[in-house]
Amino acid sequence: MRRSDGCGGYRLWLRYDPIDDPATRRDYARLTRRICLPTGSSGAPMAARAELERGLEGLLGEAPRISEEARGATLLAGTPDSCPPLGNAELRAELEALGPEGYILGRRLVAGRRRWVLASAGEAGLLYGAFRLLRMAQTRVPTSGLEVRDRPSVKLRMLDHWDNLDGTVERGYAGSSIWDWHRLPGYLPERYRDYARANASVGINAAALTNVNADPLALSTEYIEKTAALAGVLRPYGIRVFLTARFSAPLDSGALATADPRAPEVAAWWASKAEEIYRCIPDFGGFLVKANSEGQPGPQDYGRSHAEGANLLAAALAPHGGTLIWRAFVYSARASEDRAKQAYEEFVPLDGSFLPNVLVQVKNGPIDFQPREPFHPLFSAMPRTALALEFQITQEYLGFASHLAYLGTLFEEVLRADTFRGGPGATVAKVIGGSQGGQGLSCVAGVSNVGASLDWCGHHFAQANWYAFGRLAWDPSLAAADIAEEWARMSFTNDDGAVHRIVAMMMGSREAVVGYMTPLGLIHIMGWDHHYGPGPWISEGRPDWTSAYFHRAAGDGIGFERGPLGSAAVDQYAPPLRELFGSADSCPEELLLYFHRVPWDRPMRSGRTLWNELCLAYQRGVGAVAAMRDAWEGLAGFADAVRFEEVRELLAIQEAEALWWKDACLSYFASLSKRPYPEGVRAPAHGLEYYKALKPQYVPGIGRTR
Amino acid sequence: MRRSDGCGGYRLWLRYDPIDDPATRRDYARLTRRICLPTGSSGAPMAARAELERGLEGLLGEAPRISEEARGATLLAGTPDSCPPLGNAELRAELEALGPEGYILGRRLVAGRRRWVLASAGEAGLLYGAFRLLRMAQTRVPTSGLEVRDRPSVKLRMLDHWDNLDGTVERGYAGSSIWDWHRLPGYLPERYRDYARANASVGINAAALTNVNADPLALSTEYIEKTAALAGVLRPYGIRVFLTARFSAPLDSGALATADPRAPEVAAWWASKAEEIYRCIPDFGGFLVKANSEGQPGPQDYGRSHAEGANLLAAALAPHGGTLIWRAFVYSARASEDRAKQAYEEFVPLDGSFLPNVLVQVKNGPIDFQPREPFHPLFSAMPRTALALEFQITQEYLGFASHLAYLGTLFEEVLRADTFRGGPGATVAKVIGGSQGGQGLSCVAGVSNVGASLDWCGHHFAQANWYAFGRLAWDPSLAAADIAEEWARMSFTNDDGAVHRIVAMMMGSREAVVGYMTPLGLIHIMGWDHHYGPGPWISEGRPDWTSAYFHRAAGDGIGFERGPLGSAAVDQYAPPLRELFGSADSCPEELLLYFHRVPWDRPMRSGRTLWNELCLAYQRGVGAVAAMRDAWEGLAGFADAVRFEEVRELLAIQEAEALWWKDACLSYFASLSKRPYPEGVRAPAHGLEYYKALKPQYVPGIGRTR
Repeated sequence: MRRSDGCGGYRLWLRYDPIDDPATRRDYARLTRRICLPTGSSGAPMAARAELERGLEGLLGEAPRISEEARGATLLAGTPDSCPPLGNAELRAELEALGPEGYILGRRLVAGRRRWVLASAGEAGLLYGAFRLLRMAQTRVPTSGLEVRDRPSVKLRMLDHWDNLDGTVERGYAGSSIWDWHRLPGYLPERYRDYARANASVGINAAALTNVNADPLALSTEYIEKTAALAGVLRPYGIRVFLTARFSAPLDSGALATADPRAPEVAAWWASKAEEIYRCIPDFGGFLVKANSEGQPGPQDYGRSHAEGANLLAAALAPHGGTLIWRAFVYSARASEDRAKQAYEEFVPLDGSFLPNVLVQVKNGPIDFQPREPFHPLFSAMPRTALALEFQITQEYLGFASHLAYLGTLFEEVLRADTFRGGPGATVAKVIGGSQGGQGLSCVAGVSNVGASLDWCGHHFAQANWYAFGRLAWDPSLAAADIAEEWARMSFTNDDGAVHRIVAMMMGSREAVVGYMTPLGLIHIMGWDHHYGPGPWISEGRPDWTSAYFHRAAGDGIGFERGPLGSAAVDQYAPPLRELFGSADSCPEELLLYFHRVPWDRPMRSGRTLWNELCLAYQRGVGAVAAMRDAWEGLAGFADAVRFEEVRELLAIQEAEALWWKDACLSYFASLSKRPYPEGVRAPAHGLEYYKALKPQYVPGIGRTR
Repeated sequence: MRRSDGCGGYRLWLRYDPIDDPATRRDYARLTRRICLPTGSSGAPMAARAELERGLEGLLGEAPRISEEARGATLLAGTPDSCPPLGNAELRAELEALGPEGYILGRRLVAGRRRWVLASAGEAGLLYGAFRLLRMAQTRVPTSGLEVRDRPSVKLRMLDHWDNLDGTVERGYAGSSIWDWHRLPGYLPERYRDYARANASVGINAAALTNVNADPLALSTEYIEKTAALAGVLRPYGIRVFLTARFSAPLDSGALATADPRAPEVAAWWASKAEEIYRCIPDFGGFLVKANSEGQPGPQDYGRSHAEGANLLAAALAPHGGTLIWRAFVYSARASEDRAKQAYEEFVPLDGSFLPNVLVQVKNGPIDFQPREPFHPLFSAMPRTALALEFQITQEYLGFASHLAYLGTLFEEVLRADTFRGGPGATVAKVIGGSQGGQGLSCVAGVSNVGASLDWCGHHFAQANWYAFGRLAWDPSLAAADIAEEWARMSFTNDDGAVHRIVAMMMGSREAVVGYMTPLGLIHIMGWDHHYGPGPWISEGRPDWTSAYFHRAAGDGIGFERGPLGSAAVDQYAPPLRELFGSADSCPEELLLYFHRVPWDRPMRSGRTLWNELCLAYQRGVGAVAAMRDAWEGLAGFADAVRFEEVRELLAIQEAEALWWKDACLSYFASLSKRPYPEGVRAPAHGLEYYKALKPQYVPGIGRTR
């Protein structure tokens, strides 16, 4: 029989279990014995205080003494305005340079004495600093010599919830939506606050509450009131809310006969709608819009460009300081010669024509959140447009919530990718504003994996993806391995050996998924529509929604030719990347089949043929999951029994599904390549027809409204 | 800022917070200092042991010493077979008389010494006894003079989950389904065990996992495997699983061209399906079937009777000891003259023609789980048929999970209702087998209010309805007030004054709902289909699905005449009830408009006119909610801040919706009665058109599959 510990994973990484190491406990007890933290009556300082009380009581075994009294305090916490001792010119200048979200945690000369300070120019920074202090205690960072100066690199660090108003979540694998729209605005369960705490602890400061496949009802007066109530709960945690706007809302609402951006009444409708929203939610973030993509309405319905559409809504938001986020993920009504090229072709000509409060939000790759894609070429091609980077935290294409796939490595790979915009060194992180220190607009968004399940994300390890997203959005220069370690220490144990093994599991996990699903640059060969399980044989229906379109496998070879002799999509990349990617000889092998169609017998760097390498990649993917299972077995005792057993069961599912992927894909590809499986690769357990006949029912994540 | 306490309401009534009263703590510490509990390797004793460890550790502050060693034990727990000291002839006889689910908790002569024993003839009884011991400690029952002999009155105490395979819950208001069908059979999160613990703690021993609007996929080999995995988790807690069977399954599955009960291949299909299920789940409970009702397929599609249909499936289950539960809730394809009469008319002629392993499941009232209905006349009319009683725990018609409506009083009212079958004293409880001591089949079922929300039921007080259902199903003679007290002590506080006030709130709450929704015998005037909010004006569409059909209000009066001059539905009741209900003069006023159509100016017992009494009833309902809010305000400090605040917010919603109900209904009825509101009744805030124009969107509980 297994014992519950803290309601399974409900506490996330904010567990605050007692510090077992006496020296560390003594250190933090000394540092926090008496905290001066003037809260006034505003939100963020109150939230910081509550978190310090909760966290330190858990970590140290007794509640800290927190008051407004600076005399005798072991730690001075506040802003220069709220806490007069922190108001000296030197400190004030230092804090102001860090901005309202930045903070200092260290020793400073205050009224002639060196004292511990947790200080920020703004109240949000104070809250982030409080979480930082708690994280250090949770991860056993010694206080001696402690000196932290931190600030976010990106202005908007945002979760996009694809949550429908009926409570379903499109591509959600963790139960229903956490938003109880039916009982808003009156009912504000504690879970909303716990959600906000989790976000604030990693620096997430914005949330789009509704699905990008948008419902015009979200902009109705009734739902604005509901949204305002949620905004009220999130505000003390530094989080601003966004809503998705359906482009045809003026029409859908019955108010107007058109949604044409050039019609003056349409502009007036949006202006009036924005005014209505800002009356209720003065710090409303703005709108997120998916338009002219996958059937969503948009400006092209009226022969207008994306820029005209975006600027229409941006103009309505501008007087109130709002931001308009326009998605570059466009799927036109007809199939194209090369799907990968569409966003670039539609958006590059518009560079420079967006209003200053517009962000164009670009997915990390040109296709759709695959286990591995090259970075999106738009990142090097729109220098006069503020670009937001969109990741997907929910594992639509990476095994749903059943597979352990740590995405910190994926995020890191994209953020560090060099776009060569204007020369080498222009990483994606720098392009989206990560290096500009918060000048102008900048945004990293992640499609949320949060749902109403007890463990929030459907898999205890999926919590790490929420965590890593937030940490990297704050500081894109962080290493995925370091983030994994932080998270493992906070979530499971501070035993160094165990942490090392957990981190090793996490760090290899995404590559394992790439291996058993889509190695060597393959993409989008999963089950149709629901994206569950393998479907490389899918070839019917709209061509650019099929697997066959993407892998182009036949008797002579496999891959999509995007080089100069193919679709020339490589030309969308800056030199030298277009040359690097453009030749099968120089193209990184991990992207080979994305950029090139090559013969089955093409020799690879290993000396093996492509076919053999492909088979081995699938086999290695499965083997990596088996190794994760072994590793986890050795970690019993480092997690409470409930979480240990739940992860154990999920790893068993993952191995079974990895095998399904390998066997189904190899059966199919072998039927075309007509080549034998190389040594070291197990032949599939069943014939191809068996795998094709599997038709999973009631696959989660479809969502009720599309 | 508010602090979380135990993940909101996740811990249900099994909180096991430390006993604050030193004397009680000492008592229980002494009693449980050393427990002898031989667990062997089977489920229920292990579950009992785990629960005692968890519970006593929480209550007493340290884990009990539990072993197989009888010597020196302060408490001997086990069965006569597992624990030899309990095997003496006298005790064995006493235990066997209580049956395998009954138990003794008290002092008995064991090997010449009086010792504390927790003993049962069966392993399930041991588990129930362990929960009883913990409940007594939780509710501070002194151990001195303790002597408990208990056994269930009803054999099947069952939750019916209207959960769809896609994770939605029809009429569910607490999030999505707790069953994660997609990840079954491999993933068995701890929540399943916590669900089982909660059920076992109140004696619930059966669960129908799937919606009565059934999906044939539930009987597929794949889903049988999933169900078997769930059954494996529930088994140690004494819970057997049932599935709903769609009558057309042989046809839907593609196996046969008919589902006609007289076709031999259909009987063979069901026999083979039952065999397949029992191979996987040897203790499978059986099938629950909704047939020929609201569009569900059934035997009448082939011109056969309900009995033929039920017996078809019952015969398939019989060789395996399974039970077939056939619902008497029938809604024919065409509107009837009096909806209330249909079930009786269809089922009474079949009395005596069902196989011995059939239960006919009858809703508590003839209509559909209304805030108040008379008991169902079938309970007095089928003496040769085993009848199951079906309650609805989920508040489809009582304000969803937003309204505090303690249903213990409703359950009690029905169970105690005298059917006069064969003379006075034949209460519904006795008819369904409550007094027969478990001879033959007996069953009380409740439509579950459990969902995946953190607090399980969507409202902290809705947990009390799950609790009360289980307690009354075990022992229908319990008083609703006593159950409320137990629950309040376990869930909130043992402060006598606070308990008294909480119980008072609960005991008046269902009558409050009757008052502001459907007083004086009104029924079914809620919003169409979704049943949210008032809709007394609904009159379009199928007549017997409209409010106007049920209330018959017009210029001259209101009510449905079911007396001898009307539909004569009263004749379905045994004398003297048919006479009592049959005359408006003798009919209880709380059921008046259910049985009679009367003029607006009819004088009531109070001396007021019906119109004035009706208006005052609505007003009193609203007033009762305001009083609950006041009472709750005074209870701050007796609940943790999180639950206190969440209940507080929901009570505010309840008051607003009670007012909406009153104002909408009175506006509408006044438009017909043309009479002024009496003194003490506030005129509605808006005109009738305002209320009619309200069209709630995305109302929860519709479910995706119908």
